[in-house]
Amino acid sequence: MSGTKSAARRPDVSLPSHIYRRLFETRRLSLDLAAPLSPEDMTVQAMPDASPTKWHLAHTTWFFETFILTPYLPDYGIFDEAFGFCFNSYYEAVGARQPRAYRGLLTRPTSEQVFAYRAHVDEALDRLLSGPAADAVSGLIEVGINHEQQHQELLLTDILALFAANPLRPAYLSVARNLPTVSATEMRWIDYAGGIHDVGATGDTFAWDNEEPRHAALIRPFRLADRLVTNSEWLQFMQDGGYRTAAHWLADGWTLVQSEGWRSPLYWEGSGSVWHEMSLNGLLPLDLAAPVSHVSYYEADAYARWSGKRLPTEFEWEIASAGQPVTGNDLSTRALRPVAAARTAGAGPQQLFGDVWEWTQSAYLPYPGYAPAEGALGEYNGKFMVGQHVLRGASCVTPSGHARATYRNFFHPQQRWQFTGVRLASEID
Amino acid sequence: MSGTKSAARRPDVSLPSHIYRRLFETRRLSLDLAAPLSPEDMTVQAMPDASPTKWHLAHTTWFFETFILTPYLPDYGIFDEAFGFCFNSYYEAVGARQPRAYRGLLTRPTSEQVFAYRAHVDEALDRLLSGPAADAVSGLIEVGINHEQQHQELLLTDILALFAANPLRPAYLSVARNLPTVSATEMRWIDYAGGIHDVGATGDTFAWDNEEPRHAALIRPFRLADRLVTNSEWLQFMQDGGYRTAAHWLADGWTLVQSEGWRSPLYWEGSGSVWHEMSLNGLLPLDLAAPVSHVSYYEADAYARWSGKRLPTEFEWEIASAGQPVTGNDLSTRALRPVAAARTAGAGPQQLFGDVWEWTQSAYLPYPGYAPAEGALGEYNGKFMVGQHVLRGASCVTPSGHARATYRNFFHPQQRWQFTGVRLASEID
Amino acid sequence: MSGTKSAARRPDVSLPSHIYRRLFETRRLSLDLAAPLSPEDMTVQAMPDASPTKWHLAHTTWFFETFILTPYLPDYGIFDEAFGFCFNSYYEAVGARQPRAYRGLLTRPTSEQVFAYRAHVDEALDRLLSGPAADAVSGLIEVGINHEQQHQELLLTDILALFAANPLRPAYLSVARNLPTVSATEMRWIDYAGGIHDVGATGDTFAWDNEEPRHAALIRPFRLADRLVTNSEWLQFMQDGGYRTAAHWLADGWTLVQSEGWRSPLYWEGSGSVWHEMSLNGLLPLDLAAPVSHVSYYEADAYARWSGKRLPTEFEWEIASAGQPVTGNDLSTRALRPVAAARTAGAGPQQLFGDVWEWTQSAYLPYPGYAPAEGALGEYNGKFMVGQHVLRGASCVTPSGHARATYRNFFHPQQRWQFTGVRLASEID
Amino acid sequence: MSGTKSAARRPDVSLPSHIYRRLFETRRLSLDLAAPLSPEDMTVQAMPDASPTKWHLAHTTWFFETFILTPYLPDYGIFDEAFGFCFNSYYEAVGARQPRAYRGLLTRPTSEQVFAYRAHVDEALDRLLSGPAADAVSGLIEVGINHEQQHQELLLTDILALFAANPLRPAYLSVARNLPTVSATEMRWIDYAGGIHDVGATGDTFAWDNEEPRHAALIRPFRLADRLVTNSEWLQFMQDGGYRTAAHWLADGWTLVQSEGWRSPLYWEGSGSVWHEMSLNGLLPLDLAAPVSHVSYYEADAYARWSGKRLPTEFEWEIASAGQPVTGNDLSTRALRPVAAARTAGAGPQQLFGDVWEWTQSAYLPYPGYAPAEGALGEYNGKFMVGQHVLRGASCVTPSGHARATYRNFFHPQQRWQFTGVRLASEID
Repeated sequence: MSGTKSAARRPDVSLPSHIYRRLFETRRLSLDLAAPLSPEDMTVQAMPDASPTKWHLAHTTWFFETFILTPYLPDYGIFDEAFGFCFNSYYEAVGARQPRAYRGLLTRPTSEQVFAYRAHVDEALDRLLSGPAADAVSGLIEVGINHEQQHQELLLTDILALFAANPLRPAYLSVARNLPTVSATEMRWIDYAGGIHDVGATGDTFAWDNEEPRHAALIRPFRLADRLVTNSEWLQFMQDGGYRTAAHWLADGWTLVQSEGWRSPLYWEGSGSVWHEMSLNGLLPLDLAAPVSHVSYYEADAYARWSGKRLPTEFEWEIASAGQPVTGNDLSTRALRPVAAARTAGAGPQQLFGDVWEWTQSAYLPYPGYAPAEGALGEYNGKFMVGQHVLRGASCVTPSGHARATYRNFFHPQQRWQFTGVRLASEID
Repeated sequence: MSGTKSAARRPDVSLPSHIYRRLFETRRLSLDLAAPLSPEDMTVQAMPDASPTKWHLAHTTWFFETFILTPYLPDYGIFDEAFGFCFNSYYEAVGARQPRAYRGLLTRPTSEQVFAYRAHVDEALDRLLSGPAADAVSGLIEVGINHEQQHQELLLTDILALFAANPLRPAYLSVARNLPTVSATEMRWIDYAGGIHDVGATGDTFAWDNEEPRHAALIRPFRLADRLVTNSEWLQFMQDGGYRTAAHWLADGWTLVQSEGWRSPLYWEGSGSVWHEMSLNGLLPLDLAAPVSHVSYYEADAYARWSGKRLPTEFEWEIASAGQPVTGNDLSTRALRPVAAARTAGAGPQQLFGDVWEWTQSAYLPYPGYAPAEGALGEYNGKFMVGQHVLRGASCVTPSGHARATYRNFFHPQQRWQFTGVRLASEID
Repeated sequence: MSGTKSAARRPDVSLPSHIYRRLFETRRLSLDLAAPLSPEDMTVQAMPDASPTKWHLAHTTWFFETFILTPYLPDYGIFDEAFGFCFNSYYEAVGARQPRAYRGLLTRPTSEQVFAYRAHVDEALDRLLSGPAADAVSGLIEVGINHEQQHQELLLTDILALFAANPLRPAYLSVARNLPTVSATEMRWIDYAGGIHDVGATGDTFAWDNEEPRHAALIRPFRLADRLVTNSEWLQFMQDGGYRTAAHWLADGWTLVQSEGWRSPLYWEGSGSVWHEMSLNGLLPLDLAAPVSHVSYYEADAYARWSGKRLPTEFEWEIASAGQPVTGNDLSTRALRPVAAARTAGAGPQQLFGDVWEWTQSAYLPYPGYAPAEGALGEYNGKFMVGQHVLRGASCVTPSGHARATYRNFFHPQQRWQFTGVRLASEID
Repeated sequence: MSGTKSAARRPDVSLPSHIYRRLFETRRLSLDLAAPLSPEDMTVQAMPDASPTKWHLAHTTWFFETFILTPYLPDYGIFDEAFGFCFNSYYEAVGARQPRAYRGLLTRPTSEQVFAYRAHVDEALDRLLSGPAADAVSGLIEVGINHEQQHQELLLTDILALFAANPLRPAYLSVARNLPTVSATEMRWIDYAGGIHDVGATGDTFAWDNEEPRHAALIRPFRLADRLVTNSEWLQFMQDGGYRTAAHWLADGWTLVQSEGWRSPLYWEGSGSVWHEMSLNGLLPLDLAAPVSHVSYYEADAYARWSGKRLPTEFEWEIASAGQPVTGNDLSTRALRPVAAARTAGAGPQQLFGDVWEWTQSAYLPYPGYAPAEGALGEYNGKFMVGQHVLRGASCVTPSGHARATYRNFFHPQQRWQFTGVRLASEID
């Protein structure tokens, strides 16, 4: 989740006991997610964009050690000085680091050592939070929790990338092969009025700094699909020559379609009308009613053009989501893959906070008046604000409690290994 | 100029005699620009982004032949069927074409044949515009004129790239080496009120479709520098370690700084405080008072961050430019390089329509309600709307009459071979 | 060891009990070599040239399963059909396979499964060799033993590559840091008469087919160094500007020196006169008296030119080695790195069969009359005979009993991750 | 011709008037070869391996200026100091130079300036050879003549590469499209006795240093085809699945076949049984009786394996050619492409010294006792002796008088833009 690339700036919330609880629940969840994996699985990196499980487990721990324990726990003993080099992600101010593409070469420290590292840091966090400095670090603890949640999502998408590259197509979690025979509902359209709307972080809850400052935006009336585009619909796009018709594509996308030989979403295998999809449950027959996933921005945009619609802007999405319940098929359901929406009575848009992140046509840029935070944590708050597009919502592997209507995720237009899909929008005639 | 990548949609202007005159003045200007070049100079391509002079001369001619003469002049005879393959740029609907990176391999047709091609087409255009179809094609002629103007700018920037790669550092046009000793004026700031402003093409003059539709935008109060950043100021950035300090840079930019070894603008040669700059007048001592040019978006953004300011948005620029005289150091001055601004009494911002294109922080995206035009001409109007940033204004090699306040130029953030520079903006405290 | 790339053609030796014993000793040795490694260590691949330990363990097992058990043991049950795809190296005739550069993605099968695979195959081999077909397969068993020995050497060189890429610089086997203070002996020269000599496999022992046919070669008188070039001598080459002087280098080598930034042998770290070398014993102070290792052909050739000598031909080396005892610092000493030669009384050349493989100036080409063997095993006996150079001898990680005077190892001139060094030769004035 | 990469070492021949004549005939021939080309044609480089015509014309001139005029003609005035940088090929000792891959960017100096450069140097050479130093430089003049002849061949092969990349497929020299309907003769085999043979330069004529020293070689009896493999025979190889059958190919070759999509010789266009071949006479119907050309070493080797034969060694070729008339379809015939052999009565092998260079299985390595010459001219005599294979004979664009039985040409195994073909050899049963 690209959100790992941004830092928060609200370290001023006092520490209620539920943050203490959430911290250790979050720390525990990372271990639970790693439990089905062998030491080998935890070590290897499928491609430079992905990171090993072990690295995620250690990096999130290093984050607490570096930004909280070292400065705030007086007698804290660094677990291993070498880990700073191994598990720093990109903080230039904190020193040199293992190059991203070579994280998968770190067979040492072993996974056992990483588990010991986690225990060491957890014990120190417990001491810190039981002591007088607890209040002072509550904001940073919140940052650490959210940071670790982002890596939990990445841990799962990176494992999927690894297992999809394995000829055995292993399942992270096996399920019965009989898929639910839910049909997708008919796509309906919801109209929204234009006007001046406030967008961005409200200040009521934790938010990353890229959601700030809250500001007014001028919006034209628009129309939004009430559910995500399904695999069945995507198949129609394919069967209509979608991947072979230059007219649908952005020029850079068309170049990639040809050079990479794209002819379906990333994890589809098959041809004609018979397709399987590699998932965290292994290789499964394609679920036609489920939302399409693992498509790039280029594919999302081409699909929208083919269908005569367009992608929403990030503010259209945010306005439509405001006030909607922040629930959905996220990590807490343990489905681990997108599923068909069930029509709920009288509802607004479905599938907003789960299943797949939704590409928007908005470039990832700073909000008006955005200013980077001070210090290493916020060192580079805006340094990813070029060449990427904003995604909104959440996915089937986003930890529960992490999503909100103002959340800005972001990826490069060619990236496909995340759970990324499409919700259509259009003008109102 | 990236504008070559978009097509216009206002073919409904009737043909006054001044369009006839402008057409042939424009056609003539292309030949004038090629006059100082040898047949060799006209053939070679310095890099894939650039095109040979001969290709520009032929492609603009092919444009008139394909989109105007062939459909509208009944007895028109195609000059050479093979030229369609050679000189199509990227119109997928018009057929296969020479790959962009290999345009420089086309030693045949020779430059003489290309000149004959131009004469053949000019003669036919003269016949067409003297006949009954003149009115029907006036809008397309306007498109053809503007298209050729864009290629005139590219012709010059591409020749500069070629000569800069030549160890002899040839001058396209020699000048006396004594540079004017004009000093740059002090940079002043102009404040602009916020509110809802209309932006985009007004409909009064020709415009490309990416300037449409005109629409309302909500703007916050802002402050804009009254002149461009100078070479002298850029040197301070360099001497302050600008190219060695990660904290100033977007992450992708910092990666490029290191992999490409950037340590100055593209055409600077030297070290310490002694620098020359390669120009269309050959290698000259750096003109400290002149605007910095040939910097990428990454550099522009890093400079702005270093200086505690930011780049303007494209709408801020447009609002500040509205009503300003559309004049400046453009191609008509034949300076062929940026020069220091002379303070004019009581003036608004200087150097808006000449010297260098100005990077904005706005991503190149469709305006709300934008819809691609029909047909091959507008086949892919929006197909470049990803991964690029908008530049506003004009440069020292933009043909006179081509610029306007609503014009949207666009390039990728790493590109540096155009005349691209920086105007600073900031919030109003 | 490139010998894995060739297949033998002498399956006609009857099966004495010592082959039975050698088979299981060899199989056992592979497990012993893997014992110090964690499951993570066994899974990762440092670079495309290297393979994971787990892959070596499984591939050698697959070799016995595919070429011996399946055809010769009637009731043999394939352990897992999927392993053929995973662990075939390059036998086109045996079907599709995991691409070489992605062997390190195979986190499944786990190392435990690979150990079970080995046990399954070993049990079957025991049955086969206790049965009536034992004689028929004795030649193939010999091939399998030699094949596995080659992979034992590769297993260790590939682990060294992996650990050298780890910022922790782990030791495969720790040793006391006090190195023996043996000095290198003075280099002496031994003269050899010219004439017609027979070279190539004698038929007395197992040999790969690339050592055949034995044939006459016309040799000029030559002179050979009695020991290998040492680290101390290499340091003089470096301090004399060896890596900065184009005149010493083959053109392709000089290009690499510059593009790769080579300034020392592969695993050296340091500068000036203070150097360490990464080894299977971890990062150690450079042993000045030990033979230089991990140099490419280009470096070996440049060193020879700098020293006014040349590399030997493969036949010069073979003639000098004929009749010499096939002993040395090989895997059996468990030194696991090259060590200084101790002068032995009245001896011929030292260090012939251990320490490092010795680059020769001979290209790896077929012997006159060489003809590829039939069938998949010999499918491509000669398919590597282009673009590589022959190395002779053995290294500190070559299993005991694997070396002989006629053995032809081969690598590409830029490869450095093997234990490869230099013995000088010269004309006789 | 790779021979440009080596330097000769026999500057001790006194200057007879015929050398004076040959010098200026050679200088004249270069101009004649450039005559059909436009200034554009002379400037562009089709790929990094090729050089522009203008560069060949200037580089050969720079060679005379640098190695003969500057040291030996006292009052000689350098034509232009900048040309040293532009037209040095690879002599490290003579200073920095334009990178090889960017030779095609040199639109300046113009071709007219290069012609003036040639005239300037020719005039000075005439003065030098009319003066007292004539004898002293006769050997160097011989080197310069041979060097220029090599570049004459390259000039033509590089122009073919350029025109083959042009969608117009221009002819360097147009011919009537009716090809001669000569049939190829039946391939016959000639047996040669084994024994000790002397090979290498005899000292009777000019030779490059890589042909030295003459030395004894032990040869086994062998059999050689009396003519080259024809296009018709190559078509059988293709139709038998030659390019789709891994078993025929060296491993590196098979990788290239797949990555590059090779399915025929370089300049063939067509499919099934209908093929054309791009040539210096433009795109012509494939001449079935003519020798196949523009095949890589990998293809030559695969063809030989498919046919059950092998490629000859360079010494087998030399022995078979010794005493044969050094005549054939070389540049003097102006056929400019390979043609069918006419059987001559009682003859030895045909087509030895023309049509196509013949790949041998011999790696390009130094002869025993080879030692590089002194000084810049011989600076790197041996620096290309790795990774290449020897070709023997001459081609249809080799200047008359340049070939001899001991000549060693050399190219990398993947290179195909030269006129390179196949003569088969085999063991004698």
